[in-house]
Amino acid sequence: ERPAITSSARPPESLDDGELWEEIRAEAKADTQQEPALASFLYSVILAHSSLDDSLAFHLANKLASPTLLATQLMELFKQVIRSDPGIQDAYRADLRAVKARDPACRGYSQALLYFKGFQAVQAHRVAHALWQRERIPLALALQSRISDCFHVDIHPAARVGKGILLDHATGVVIGETAVIGDDVSILHGVTLGGTGKETGDRHPKIGNGVLLAANVTVLGNITIGDGSKIGAGSLVLKSIPPHVTAVGVPARVLGRNK
Amino acid sequence: ERPAITSSARPPESLDDGELWEEIRAEAKADTQQEPALASFLYSVILAHSSLDDSLAFHLANKLASPTLLATQLMELFKQVIRSDPGIQDAYRADLRAVKARDPACRGYSQALLYFKGFQAVQAHRVAHALWQRERIPLALALQSRISDCFHVDIHPAARVGKGILLDHATGVVIGETAVIGDDVSILHGVTLGGTGKETGDRHPKIGNGVLLAANVTVLGNITIGDGSKIGAGSLVLKSIPPHVTAVGVPARVLGRNK
Amino acid sequence: ERPAITSSARPPESLDDGELWEEIRAEAKADTQQEPALASFLYSVILAHSSLDDSLAFHLANKLASPTLLATQLMELFKQVIRSDPGIQDAYRADLRAVKARDPACRGYSQALLYFKGFQAVQAHRVAHALWQRERIPLALALQSRISDCFHVDIHPAARVGKGILLDHATGVVIGETAVIGDDVSILHGVTLGGTGKETGDRHPKIGNGVLLAANVTVLGNITIGDGSKIGAGSLVLKSIPPHVTAVGVPARVLGRNK
Repeated sequence: ERPAITSSARPPESLDDGELWEEIRAEAKADTQQEPALASFLYSVILAHSSLDDSLAFHLANKLASPTLLATQLMELFKQVIRSDPGIQDAYRADLRAVKARDPACRGYSQALLYFKGFQAVQAHRVAHALWQRERIPLALALQSRISDCFHVDIHPAARVGKGILLDHATGVVIGETAVIGDDVSILHGVTLGGTGKETGDRHPKIGNGVLLAANVTVLGNITIGDGSKIGAGSLVLKSIPPHVTAVGVPARVLGRNK
Repeated sequence: ERPAITSSARPPESLDDGELWEEIRAEAKADTQQEPALASFLYSVILAHSSLDDSLAFHLANKLASPTLLATQLMELFKQVIRSDPGIQDAYRADLRAVKARDPACRGYSQALLYFKGFQAVQAHRVAHALWQRERIPLALALQSRISDCFHVDIHPAARVGKGILLDHATGVVIGETAVIGDDVSILHGVTLGGTGKETGDRHPKIGNGVLLAANVTVLGNITIGDGSKIGAGSLVLKSIPPHVTAVGVPARVLGRNK
Repeated sequence: ERPAITSSARPPESLDDGELWEEIRAEAKADTQQEPALASFLYSVILAHSSLDDSLAFHLANKLASPTLLATQLMELFKQVIRSDPGIQDAYRADLRAVKARDPACRGYSQALLYFKGFQAVQAHRVAHALWQRERIPLALALQSRISDCFHVDIHPAARVGKGILLDHATGVVIGETAVIGDDVSILHGVTLGGTGKETGDRHPKIGNGVLLAANVTVLGNITIGDGSKIGAGSLVLKSIPPHVTAVGVPARVLGRNK
């Protein structure tokens, strides 16, 4: 096992917001010294900014920009939304801590910020969701489309997503309009929270706190996955699952209660 | 439920081609007024054009362009192919109506045109297929590659695709060289129409009219899905399925006849 | 069946390295004559270069470049790594021969080089892996992220990948940190070589030589797929599979010995 690139060995939950930003800057400085080829990239995304909010807004804007949706325009939008919404600020920091704590391949907070498209997709969705709630529907839909183009994750801007989310690998994730995801949820690549196609209105899954949805899990319909439950890779879930159990299979069956 | 952004409450099938274009322009104008940040985007993609054909050609060209395949070059190509092929014109309009009619998250025709990578992938495929049939094989293969890069959908340019197609969410869809898809087919993300690896020549599935293939369905081999049949999410189909039934499972079994 | 675009009818394994490069140039020249719209693209990617190493470095650099990771910088890096590593040179040529020999939709070596994102992802991973082994961790992680952004394939740079690899269609493939893949392996789209989430350290699958993993196969944990075995589409593999068998299902069961 190689050593982590974090300069601190402290557990993620122990860092306050100021320490988190300092830790990310320390990681970026160490990487700049080790790899001069990345210096201008790390400077522009992290070291040039006076806050983590601004660094995130800059990075997302550059990832999602297109010839017709300019990076400067997106950056101003993201800065405005993130700075004005303490809920988003709290949530994305909880996500950074969650990725560091739960993903064994994550070596530092800056890695999640810079390189994990699942983390980036969730944060861009938080902005799209805030726009949706402020009735800026066309802009929210434009962002949803850019998130799907750039991060291969299709989250409807109306979907409600808690904090402490790990969206690992992320390719192919689809989350429908009326889905609700609790706090501290881990979702792997290829997961679908979809409709059955037979319902309209409130038609998508509700995912409890602390749930784990493994790779390529499909959950369909307005059903519930109870708090703390785990759904095994490749499972198809068509009925509600109680809290604190493990379920697997096509269709999913409960194996037993989690310890 | 929020109101749709369409200015018209008329059902999709009732709009003739001229009315469809007028409706799309009306939606774009309404969005421009509501969201000035999108004005230049909506102007360049929709309002600046004198026909839906040209708007589509412009938009696809800009999405698929690269440093080595220039947008201007692609736009001329797409305009030429679309303008000279009434079959493509008819098919993409049927697709717009299909998305509006069948996708409950679609609020207007302009949303499908502007933002749905599944719609865009199918239309770019129609152009690649026309080039393939005109023996412009290298260019068709170049387009296939750009569609896979930009829309995460890999459709071989020889595959034959009907009209009234909904490719929903679209990430991960793979459609092989000798596949044939009928009219009014709905295909969700992660669907594969592939070969078994044991056959050469005509080796891919034939999908009837009005079929629904739910998320992550895999259909392998030169088999048939009968008209009007529905295949449940995550199913693996290795044998032909009769018309007007629902089939599910790994491997898929017929549950019963559709009402 | 249309004729292949290769000018030579010789089987892939019979071409030596010099003949392979000459064959790719001959294909590019033929395509340039048939399709002038592709002339500048084919010139810049293939015909302008004096070696296949440099052509590959140029093409990967342009595909993976971003506003903050410049193409010129990446090209120098890729040239340095590829030119200094005979193992990579040998492996990517074996991959080109494998794609041509095993993918019935592949009409020529230049098609794999130019257009197959699975081929491109594997070669970019080989560079990232070389950087990882030289302790250039931050740059390896930056490349992993660009590969996931551009090719929709997430391969940890520490994963060890043999030669003669076909990564077909490629969207959604995820390969974990401690995975090992042998020689002459075929992997279709949507394949996961992941962890169970319960282990740390050496926690990912070991794939033998000559294995076929069909579409959407999920293999989890530090288990082995024996040499020459085939895993059917959509299977979930949670226990080791012996050599030279076919296994299918959720969870996978051995059907019988391969002939």
